This record gives sequence, structure tokens and C-alpha cells, in this order.
Amino acid sequence: MRPSGRKTDQMRKISFERAFSKHAEGSCLVKFGDTHVLCTASVEEKPPAWLRNTGKGWVTAEYGMLPRSTGERMRREAASGKQGGRTQEIQRLIGRSLRAVVNLEAMGERQITVDCDVIQADGGTRTAAITGGWIALHDCLKWMESRGMVKVEKVLKDHVAAISCGIFANQPVIDLDYLEDSSAETDANFVMTGSGGIVEIQGTAEGAPFSEEELLTLMGLAKNGIAELVALQKQAIG
Amino acid sequence: MRPSGRKTDQMRKISFERAFSKHAEGSCLVKFGDTHVLCTASVEEKPPAWLRNTGKGWVTAEYGMLPRSTGERMRREAASGKQGGRTQEIQRLIGRSLRAVVNLEAMGERQITVDCDVIQADGGTRTAAITGGWIALHDCLKWMESRGMVKVEKVLKDHVAAISCGIFANQPVIDLDYLEDSSAETDANFVMTGSGGIVEIQGTAEGAPFSEEELLTLMGLAKNGIAELVALQKQAIG
Amino acid sequence: MRPSGRKTDQMRKISFERAFSKHAEGSCLVKFGDTHVLCTASVEEKPPAWLRNTGKGWVTAEYGMLPRSTGERMRREAASGKQGGRTQEIQRLIGRSLRAVVNLEAMGERQITVDCDVIQADGGTRTAAITGGWIALHDCLKWMESRGMVKVEKVLKDHVAAISCGIFANQPVIDLDYLEDSSAETDANFVMTGSGGIVEIQGTAEGAPFSEEELLTLMGLAKNGIAELVALQKQAIG
Amino acid sequence: MRPSGRKTDQMRKISFERAFSKHAEGSCLVKFGDTHVLCTASVEEKPPAWLRNTGKGWVTAEYGMLPRSTGERMRREAASGKQGGRTQEIQRLIGRSLRAVVNLEAMGERQITVDCDVIQADGGTRTAAITGGWIALHDCLKWMESRGMVKVEKVLKDHVAAISCGIFANQPVIDLDYLEDSSAETDANFVMTGSGGIVEIQGTAEGAPFSEEELLTLMGLAKNGIAELVALQKQAIG
Amino acid sequence: MRPSGRKTDQMRKISFERAFSKHAEGSCLVKFGDTHVLCTASVEEKPPAWLRNTGKGWVTAEYGMLPRSTGERMRREAASGKQGGRTQEIQRLIGRSLRAVVNLEAMGERQITVDCDVIQADGGTRTAAITGGWIALHDCLKWMESRGMVKVEKVLKDHVAAISCGIFANQPVIDLDYLEDSSAETDANFVMTGSGGIVEIQGTAEGAPFSEEELLTLMGLAKNGIAELVALQKQAIG
Amino acid sequence: MRPSGRKTDQMRKISFERAFSKHAEGSCLVKFGDTHVLCTASVEEKPPAWLRNTGKGWVTAEYGMLPRSTGERMRREAASGKQGGRTQEIQRLIGRSLRAVVNLEAMGERQITVDCDVIQADGGTRTAAITGGWIALHDCLKWMESRGMVKVEKVLKDHVAAISCGIFANQPVIDLDYLEDSSAETDANFVMTGSGGIVEIQGTAEGAPFSEEELLTLMGLAKNGIAELVALQKQAIG
Repeated sequence: MRPSGRKTDQMRKISFERAFSKHAEGSCLVKFGDTHVLCTASVEEKPPAWLRNTGKGWVTAEYGMLPRSTGERMRREAASGKQGGRTQEIQRLIGRSLRAVVNLEAMGERQITVDCDVIQADGGTRTAAITGGWIALHDCLKWMESRGMVKVEKVLKDHVAAISCGIFANQPVIDLDYLEDSSAETDANFVMTGSGGIVEIQGTAEGAPFSEEELLTLMGLAKNGIAELVALQKQAIG
Repeated sequence: MRPSGRKTDQMRKISFERAFSKHAEGSCLVKFGDTHVLCTASVEEKPPAWLRNTGKGWVTAEYGMLPRSTGERMRREAASGKQGGRTQEIQRLIGRSLRAVVNLEAMGERQITVDCDVIQADGGTRTAAITGGWIALHDCLKWMESRGMVKVEKVLKDHVAAISCGIFANQPVIDLDYLEDSSAETDANFVMTGSGGIVEIQGTAEGAPFSEEELLTLMGLAKNGIAELVALQKQAIG
Repeated sequence: MRPSGRKTDQMRKISFERAFSKHAEGSCLVKFGDTHVLCTASVEEKPPAWLRNTGKGWVTAEYGMLPRSTGERMRREAASGKQGGRTQEIQRLIGRSLRAVVNLEAMGERQITVDCDVIQADGGTRTAAITGGWIALHDCLKWMESRGMVKVEKVLKDHVAAISCGIFANQPVIDLDYLEDSSAETDANFVMTGSGGIVEIQGTAEGAPFSEEELLTLMGLAKNGIAELVALQKQAIG
Repeated sequence: MRPSGRKTDQMRKISFERAFSKHAEGSCLVKFGDTHVLCTASVEEKPPAWLRNTGKGWVTAEYGMLPRSTGERMRREAASGKQGGRTQEIQRLIGRSLRAVVNLEAMGERQITVDCDVIQADGGTRTAAITGGWIALHDCLKWMESRGMVKVEKVLKDHVAAISCGIFANQPVIDLDYLEDSSAETDANFVMTGSGGIVEIQGTAEGAPFSEEELLTLMGLAKNGIAELVALQKQAIG
Repeated sequence: MRPSGRKTDQMRKISFERAFSKHAEGSCLVKFGDTHVLCTASVEEKPPAWLRNTGKGWVTAEYGMLPRSTGERMRREAASGKQGGRTQEIQRLIGRSLRAVVNLEAMGERQITVDCDVIQADGGTRTAAITGGWIALHDCLKWMESRGMVKVEKVLKDHVAAISCGIFANQPVIDLDYLEDSSAETDANFVMTGSGGIVEIQGTAEGAPFSEEELLTLMGLAKNGIAELVALQKQAIG
Repeated sequence: MRPSGRKTDQMRKISFERAFSKHAEGSCLVKFGDTHVLCTASVEEKPPAWLRNTGKGWVTAEYGMLPRSTGERMRREAASGKQGGRTQEIQRLIGRSLRAVVNLEAMGERQITVDCDVIQADGGTRTAAITGGWIALHDCLKWMESRGMVKVEKVLKDHVAAISCGIFANQPVIDLDYLEDSSAETDANFVMTGSGGIVEIQGTAEGAPFSEEELLTLMGLAKNGIAELVALQKQAIG
């Protein structure tokens, strides 16, 4: 029995609120149940220094949590003077995941920064950030297309979305919330494209090691969940 | 003529959305037009080190802006490794303003941190933060009261709210939005209590110095505006 | 009764020692009683990056306290690795105050940095810094004039000086020393020009909120005090 | 054809030089071909603050690269003032991997820090660090056992080792060196125990997404390689 | 010929202004010609953590330069966020030099911090800091003696003073000013006690290496100079 | 009696392992007994900013200790976020010492960075670093010569090597190991060239001040030791 009463293969209620921000070229407030992440995409007319004169652009991501997005207040990273290891790990993952579906040559020498700020956390913030970040990125590219800067279809090769699966109370389950996440034996995050390719997989045994069979079961759950997320993305931008 | 079409003594549409955050003891999403600030109040059962064994508590504030809360993306302070001078100035102001209406002895040896995070900025973020921060603080104290920790009426002596006034296009106006703020000749922030006492006044000549008469005119505008804000606070918590 | 025996409208003994530093283009050791601040003005032949090719110059300020300028030794900010919020707030105020009387276009693309270092502190360091900083700035511009770089009268539009006033033991008093400052109910800093315009006003209720009438009383004291400071500045540079 | 002439399922020459360091309680210079990592395990008689009075111990890891361990000199992290995202990601991975085979209760309230410093890098530094780090940890526990502090067999539940696999030139290959790593389409790191359980799996598509079949092929290679690494570990400590 | 017209064995005009600071337990403005250093000694009733419960005290030093103490404005170390290598090297030297004449056991568990802040620099700031720092330390101990905390004669074993010597224009000279220092071939700093013992010697070839004979010549100059400095210290505290 | 059984004028076993690193242009693992330092020299085709367009090059050094190179684990400087005072002092000394034998004009506008990383420490790490750093620098210049970039004999004017001497148990001894170093009364480091010139001398009284005679005795020991080190350098590169 899951604490939320969900079935093992049932994700939380997913929603995307596009154009949440008045200023950003693309933005989306994504909700996976009580996990709420604001994703904004900002375009700059110059790429990072190491890409100058290559004709290529770049997509990068930053991640942050509001201090009281969590059950106990966390110290503000700006106050402690640095981004922690977890923050850096997650923002690198988001950036890699989004770049996996972008044709950087077709972007031209520009940089798009996707900021993913967790307004409220209840497990799965990184998967929500990737999934909602794709919407923000898409809308930013649309904004650019409307100004003749790019062709969206040339830059954005596919959808990308992410979900966590894990073994909770001896059951493989999808889209773990915080309660499940903090006592799961195994936790794996899957990032996949709209056409079903794997972009990233990160599985960690929190307690006992897991087997190949368990990994395959989790992957099966993830494939279905991500297909559903991609369908919701399509509906959102449709 | 104000760019927004407002009258000189007309504030933007003000709203408070209480309990915006599932985790915080008190929280409020405050909107002054397109300026949106999420205020959360978090209580900790120990005061800062320098208050130990004094029987007194403390209220402090932190302030941050999401990187794309502004027209152009700002660098994330956590990434640059420190909070800028403006951030520190504002969070010190918010903390002082809230403490002005709190009886620290009646709080007991605890600390309440009010985090004010700007989701979207359009001028007046510090005044919105103070005004909404009061709601979050109030709700946090209510939460504490329901657990027998404090009596709200003993801790919270009064309301506090804030508004900016300035001279724009030679006219004294209230509640400047970003367009007005960036070209105002004079800009003053007023923080006042429910009973009309002045807690803080900060007036700055952006261009030519201003006169005592101009200051008094701005103060007149502010008094009316703050009275209205306090009425809205009362309605919100009523 | 004031601890120092001064009358309520009596400032401390004020003095300016020009050319205190052998190296700086302009310098002044300013004393407001036991508060001693060394102000040096340094000119650089390039403006900050964001002013390049605008034809405009810039005046900025930095503020610091020697570790034992105070009654108890303070931690050295260079050792703690950052400037605190109070330091940043004060140096921003000094910079704004000086720029209020400078014609930045007439400076040409240069930057003048006014360093205000507190050698000994006894209350009112920021007001001494602004008042003495103006002398250092003036002398720096004179040095530049003697090399044909600027015309002082075109760059420096007016005098600027500052004083604190507050309510101490229920009496409005001017130029608070440390003893008064640490127990004043209300504390306000005024920055005004030679012609009496207000550049900046910052009033804070340390205990109970204050009224508009109190503010006007303090402003009356400040106007007289600043007029006297400007007269002393004129005498010093005469 | 692999640049090194190795077969697709052939790891580089692996060696462990135990007791490399005169000071550390356990140490090992591990070589995976030209990748050389010095692993030292240091025991402290107090656990991290958050474990005090729980009876549990902790194993943590730190990772660093000498500035010229790489083809081009990298900036020293101590000089740049912080550990980069990649460093933090790797040291968190090493720590999790080692903890997966440690009974923290049986350690008592102590902390063991495993430092993994890359003397020379040629791809696969994190997998070498985990594999050699296990030897250093084992030897540290032996040192503790000889002083009556712990029983090794109660603390160390199993072996743990790691290897990278990837798709290079359309071929699944094991133990990528730098040349292969920098042009591989897909790169996956596997961390497994002596009994074949999966502790961690991290797969990333560098270019095109990969399929489940490809992942399974890589996992097959990894299982054989890790079995061989565990055999070498046994031989080394035998 | 020395640029200042001094003889090769002639130091600059030396002066000590005791009790320069109203707050510090001991203080001294020391001048070696145009090099002016403010030294303050501050006592704290607790030693550094690593000396707790040993019965011993500690003397430490910090060093700083005002931004415009030099010919060109230097960046403020508090603003750049760290103390440079030269600063740290000098403050470690001052601390070691002063501790060489202090009986740490006789101090009791206290710490004295000697802050040496360069108000104006013209070469030889570290030697002036040590020489003037001794006066500040002495006066701090006198202050403590007057409160029954220590016996000065038990704590302060001897005088300590310092001077630089160097080879300038092929001539061995004493007490180099900035002009000489920046073109000297060899530069050596000597720290000696009142009884003529060597506490520290640091000789550096700026251009060609120097010989043992040259070193001995410089040491002869230094011995005479330091004897003179000690006589001046005695006169100052007499 | 020395703890190691060495005679007073006997250095530890010295060895140089050239080309220790596969990547660096020059490298050397130098051992002074149990003190092991890896020195790598890296060349860059651009000098520091302040040497641009001067035709001159630069040689700089960085120094670090692996966390468990010492008897007790030290905190990693990359983790604490800055290089300590001792690290900076040593790397500045190494840089100055190497530059003393380099003709910077003959290098052309390039920079060579010599990284000295202590793998294992047992006293005398800085002297080993200078002595081994010279080998790495020499080999780097040879590498450059083989590519027609420089003539070694024009750039490298002489050998440079370093040794510590001190007074241990009332006896002047050479090449102190950690046990001796931590209880020596006096400790001096000498840096000399192949032709016997002094480049740097740093003598410190750890306990009682020392006399000129003692200094000369230590220098006598050092001269012989450095002559021997230079002979070993010649043999190593021969």
C-alpha cells in the first residue's frame, strides 16, 4: 500500500501552467502532485566563451530550492556562499537531459538557460524539472521562431521527460513522493525521449543492492510513465 | 499620466494568498500588481547564539529573487557565491520592520525566519515583502498558538505594512511599478504600523535633491496607502 | 542631559585634515569628536565596464572599519572573506550621496573611488564619511583640474554633508555619539546639499514607532547642523 | 578496433599497491592502465555531528585530481576556492558505493574518510577510485581490528567494485580509456558487489539516446568485469 | 647615493605615538619616515580552541593595508573576499616575532591580537609593524597588569624589533624606502631581540644571488639599527 | 643522537624519478627519505596578463598536500575553500627560487607552472619541492627545446636546490625530518644555486633566539648539502 493510496504504476496528478512568468521567453510551472517547480527559459545572444566562433549554441540549466520548499527549512545557498553537491549534480543532469534533444548547431551562437526553482518539494523535483523544463525550452524556442531567430523543428529534435521509480515496501512503484523516497530500498531516475530512447539512467541502492531483474521492472514502469508524460507535454503545447 | 493609467494616489491590485506553502508554519503569496513575492515563516526552537539564556526570541528575514523574476535574467546569487549589497540591505530592512511590531520577550527563546522570495518583479518588491511577510508571521504565530507555544496577541503588537511613493513626471505618485521606478526623480519607502507610527522611512533623490515639502506630500500618500494595506491584511486574516 | 554634556542641538567638534595621505589624489581625515574617518579619493582613467563609450564617469565609495576602531575588537572583514550587510549598506549610501552632487558627464570616462576607513568609531561614522568624503572628492577634482582633466566647477555641482539626529531620553538631539546611539529610540540620518535639498533620509524606529512630528523636529535639527557642516567644508577648502 | 588494441571485453591491466602511504590506516595505489589513483582511508574517533549518540559510524569519500594529472593542466580547486560540480558528484558516488557494503552500526561512532586523489588520469578515474577505495577501507578496518576496535567481518559485508562500459565506434566495450571516453556515444558506470548485486548504475547518452538492449549488453560486460575486479581484490588482500 | 639623501647606515626618522586609539588596550602609531602603521593590541579572555585547558595563552597578529596606502590604489581585501599570500605571510611573521619574546604560560588562558594596519606605505611596512607592535603589546600588558591579570615582567621577556637591509646600487643600505626596495638587488629582513638574539632572518635575492659576505654585511647594519630601535622603544615607554 | 641515527651532516636518501607523469612536459617524483613530492612542469603559450607584449615569460609554482600525506589527516584545501597561509608562503618561495635561475626574456611570452604536490610528508617538503621542481622545469625546457621553442642553456642559467638545517638537541643538523623539525630550537631553510650563490635564506627561532655564530654553522652545513644535491641533480639529468 502506498501512503498516498496510489496504485504501483500510477503517477501523481501532473499539470503544466505555461507562461507563468511575465518576463521569461518561455516558462512553465510544473506540478507532480505536491512537487511544484517553476521553470523559466532565458535566451542570451551570446554563447559561453568556449563556443565562440563555432556556430554552435548551448543549453544549460540551474536548479535551486526555496528555503522553505521542504519540510524543514534549508539554509539558503546564496547565504551559505555556495551551491551544494546535490544542487550541482541535479543541474548538470537537467542540462544534459535537455541538450540530448537539441540540435546545438541549429540554435546559432546563443545560450538558453533553463532555471528550475522548486517552490514546493515532495519528492521527484529533478524529474519534474526536466519534464517542465522541456516545456519552457519549447516555448522559448517558439518565441525565438516568432522573431525569425530559429526554426523550432530544426532545433528541438524530440521530447524529453523524466520519472523516478523505486522499490518501496518490496513493491516496484512509479513517481515516488517524499514519504516513499525517504524509505525506498532502491531509487532510480529515468530520462527518456519521446521516441523511447534512454538519455540517462541513474539507479542507486539505498539499502540492499538490487538485481538486474528489479532494474528491468523499474524500467518497464518508467517507459509507460514517460510515454504518458510526453503525451501530456504534447497536449500542453498543442 | 502614469504608464499603467492609474491615478496618482492609486495602488496596484493587492492580494494575499495565505497558506500557499504546504510545509511552512505560515506563508503568503502577496501580489502588488505584477510583483509577486512568496513569504514563508519558519519557526525554530532555538534562538540565535547571542540570545541564549536571555528568555528572548528573534525574528529575522531573508530575501531573494529568482533569476528570471526580472526583465533580464540576473545571475543566481547562490552561483555567484554571495548575496549582493542590495539583497542584504533589503533583508535587513524586512527584519527590522517585522521586529518593530513583535514583543521578543513574549516569543520565548525561538527564532522565526521570514523568507521573501520574489517570483516575479515589477517594482516595489521590498514593500510587498514586508506587507506579505506580516501575514506569514501572523499565521506562523497562530500555528504556534494552536500548539500552546505563544499567545498571538502578546507577541504581535500591531500590523506593519509598507509602500513606496515617488515623484514621477513631476507628480507625486504611490506604489511605483518598474517603469515608474526606473525613471522617478525621487523614491521613498515608508514602513508604518497599523496605528500610524513610522517604523522606517528611506527617501533617496535619484536625480535632483528633493525638498521637505515634497517629502511631506509623499508621506501623506503613504499614510493613506498603508492604512488601506492594513485594512486588506485585516480582511485577509479575518 | 546628554552623556557628553552637549546641548541638544550641539554637534561634536568637527575637523578636517586635508592631504592626510601622501599618495591619494585627494584625502581628508575627518573627525566628528572621537569618530575619526580617513577618506581618500583615487582616480582611475577608466570607468566601470557598463559605462564604456558613454562619455560618462562614475563615483563610487568603499567603507571599512579597522578591527579595533570599536570598543570590542571586530573580526576583520578580509579575514572572514566578505563584507557584511552593514558595510555594503553604508558604502552604497556614501556613493549615492556623493554622486548626487556630481555631474557624471562632465567627469569624462573616469572613475573616482572614495575609500572611507574608520580609524576610530564613536557613532556617526557614515555621516562623517560622507562629509569628509566630499572634501577628498573635491581635492581629487582639484588635482585633476591642475592637470587639465576637468573643470571642478562643472563637475562638482554643490556641497553634500550628513548628520544623524535621534530621540534620546525623550529629547531630539543632533549628532549622536555611540552611547546615545546605542540607546536612542529613533535614529535618522540626513544627507543634504549646500543649497538645502534632501539627498537621502533614513529614519528607523529602534524601539517604538515615531510620529511625523518627531520626524519634522529631527529634520529641523539636521538642516541647521548640515548648514554648519557645509560652512566648515567651505572654510576647510577656502 | 579499440585505440589501445584491446578486445571489446578486455579491461586494462589492473593493479593494487597496498600500504602505499606510511601514515594512513589503510591505503592503496590502484592502477587501471594509465589511470592511477591513490586511495587512503583515515579513521577518526568521532562521527559527523548528526550521528552523535546514535551508536552508528560513517564512511565518506573525497576526490581530487592533481592539476597535471590530465592532458592539459587543470586549475587547482584549492586555488579556485571551490570544488566543481564534477568533483562533488564523484565523491558522493564513491561514498555511497562504499557505504553500500558497510554495516554502519558495527563500526561504532567513528568516521572513516576515503581520499581518492588522481595522480594520473586516462579515463575511468571514478571506477578505479571505488575499486581501490575498497582496498584502502578494508585495510583500515584490519588496522582497527588489530587494535580491538571492530571486527572486519561484521563491518564489511561484501566487496564492491566499479567499471565503465560504453558504446564506442558502434561496439559495446568495457573499461574505456580517455580516447574512447571522449568520443563514446554512450557511457555507463556500474557499481556492483561481490555477490553481484547492483549498487549504482549511471548511464548517459552522450550523443544519440540508447536503447534498453544496449543497456543490457553493457551490463553484461560490466558483470564479467566486476567479477574479475573482485577476484583481483581478493587476491590483493589474500 | 640614496634617493632620500640618507647615509647607507642611516634609518629614516622613527617615531611612536602611544595610546593612539581610544578603545584598544594598547596601541601605537609607528612611523618609519613616510611608512605609517597603526598597531593595536586587543585582549580576549579566551585562548584559541586548541589551547583550552593548557594554562597557556597566545599572541597572534593580523596585517592589512588601507586601499590607498600605496602609490596606486590596491583592491580592498575584504571586497576581493580573501587575504592575499603576501598579507598572510606578513601577519604570520609578525605573530611569530612577537611570540618569541612572550612567555605564553605566564599570560594565562587569554589571547592578544595585534592588528597592524598600514595607513601609509613607503617600504618596510612589516618591520615597522613588528617594532610598533611590540609597543602596543607592551601597553596592553601594562593595562592588564593594572587590573591584576598578569605581571608584565613575567610575560614580556625582552624587546623585539625589525629592520630591512639590502643592496641598492651596489651599496649595502639600511631601512629601504619604496624607491630603494623596488630596485634593490637583495633584500633582507631581520628581527632581533633587545639582547641581540636573532628571531627571524629572511633574505631574498631579487636579481643575482648574493654571497655569504654580503649577508654578513647586511647583518652588521641590521644589528646596529635594531639596537637603535630598541633604544627608541625604551625611550617611548620610559 | 638523531632519531633516524643519521650523522649531523648527513642528509636522508635522495632520489629523483624523472618522467613520472605521462602528461606533463616535465615531471619528477623527488624523495628526501620519507618525504615524497611530485613535481610537474606545465607550459602554456601565454604569459600572465601583466607580461603581455613585454617579450618576457614567467615561471610560477603551486604547492599542495594530499589530505593524508601527514600523520593526521588534514582538511583538503579545495573543500575548505581556500589555500592557507602556509601553502601560499611555500608556493611563493618555490616560484621565487626557480625564477632566480631562469632568464625570463629568453623564455618568450610563455608561462611554466610547476606544481609541487606532497604525496607523503616527513619534514622538508618545501626544500624537496624546490630541488625536484628544478628537475621538472629542466625537463620541461628540454621538451620545449626539442620543439624549437627555446634554447635550454639560454633560459636555465644555473641549478637551484634547497635544504633545511636546524639546531636539534643542541646540535646543528642538516635535512630535518618531521620528528626533528617539530622539536628543533631553530630552523632555517637555504636555497642556493649551483655556483654557490644564496637565493633565499629563512631562519626562524622556534624557541630561544639564535646567534650569528649558529646561523653561520647552519649555513656551512647547508652549503655542503646543497652542493651534494646539485651533484645528484646533474647525475639525474646526465
